[in-house]
Amino acid sequence: MSTQERLVRSTQELLWERGYVGTSPKAILERAGVGQGSMYHHFAGKSDLALAAIRRTAETMKESADACLSGPGTAYERVAAYLLRERRVLRGCPIGRMTQDRDVVQSPELRQPLDEMFGWLRGRIAEVLAEGQRRGELAAALDPAATAATVAAVVQGGYVLARAADDTAPFDAAVRGALALLASQVTPAAG
Amino acid sequence: MSTQERLVRSTQELLWERGYVGTSPKAILERAGVGQGSMYHHFAGKSDLALAAIRRTAETMKESADACLSGPGTAYERVAAYLLRERRVLRGCPIGRMTQDRDVVQSPELRQPLDEMFGWLRGRIAEVLAEGQRRGELAAALDPAATAATVAAVVQGGYVLARAADDTAPFDAAVRGALALLASQVTPAAG
Repeated sequence: MSTQERLVRSTQELLWERGYVGTSPKAILERAGVGQGSMYHHFAGKSDLALAAIRRTAETMKESADACLSGPGTAYERVAAYLLRERRVLRGCPIGRMTQDRDVVQSPELRQPLDEMFGWLRGRIAEVLAEGQRRGELAAALDPAATAATVAAVVQGGYVLARAADDTAPFDAAVRGALALLASQVTPAAG
Repeated sequence: MSTQERLVRSTQELLWERGYVGTSPKAILERAGVGQGSMYHHFAGKSDLALAAIRRTAETMKESADACLSGPGTAYERVAAYLLRERRVLRGCPIGRMTQDRDVVQSPELRQPLDEMFGWLRGRIAEVLAEGQRRGELAAALDPAATAATVAAVVQGGYVLARAADDTAPFDAAVRGALALLASQVTPAAG
């Protein structure tokens, strides 16, 4: 693995574990096992390296969410696949976590990939729901954009509740509750 | 205001703004305008002071949530009052925020008030929903505990989405979507 790659991966891990403010350049160098000179050869500094790491993490999340949302099945089944996909719930979301870091959200550059990722996610879920409506699977009265925001929020908020409890049960309950509500919007013919 | 009170309030503000790892004892002393000796007279250290601050914040949140949930109206209206209550959305939740701090969730003592607050919140929303079912206002098939976790997660996740976008719109959309789904569970007689 190249030095640059080791730096990006170490930063991804540290940001997830400790957040931006809790991640020192020294910790990144130690975890990557590279010297300070190498870091400044590839990156202008912590912020530049964090940007590369956040972009990479967001890209990976987008791919794994899209694998569920673009899979086979009805709109309900695809949203269910996204909500129920394997997650390391107690670690939380590496992108959602960044929104709690003041230095990240106050930097337009560092906030951009978070905004882009969640904007894409809400848009993609809304598309799936709208498709389900066009196919007559879901009630026409459902607001795809609002419901998509609800689905994305349930996952992010589920992490918060699970971490507070040090237990995945509240995450699972929140997902189960959301799916039951969404199931009530499945038309009798499609259900 | 007593020195002790100034220390607690300053710590509440700093934890909300910067998180636990981002809050130094020095910053607390500066904001409270007290000397180091005074702090150690009242508190054993940062962790002890943070515990007092987190407990206080959790207590306040509980009171304001309960004011909505124990208010007048149907179960739907009370949950709606909770979801729609005035919030400084872009500041996020001072308690939810703490779940992203590794030092907080890894300390059983500091995590306890977060667990207690969200556990109480889910329980109280579930009670309101179960009451609505007993009164015939809500569909009997609704799972009160799971739906309560969904409602609590929508608020916490709504903050995450709003902070990523630097815009309250995704929070409002998530709440609107959740309320529309819940409204579909209101029985025709009650609705």
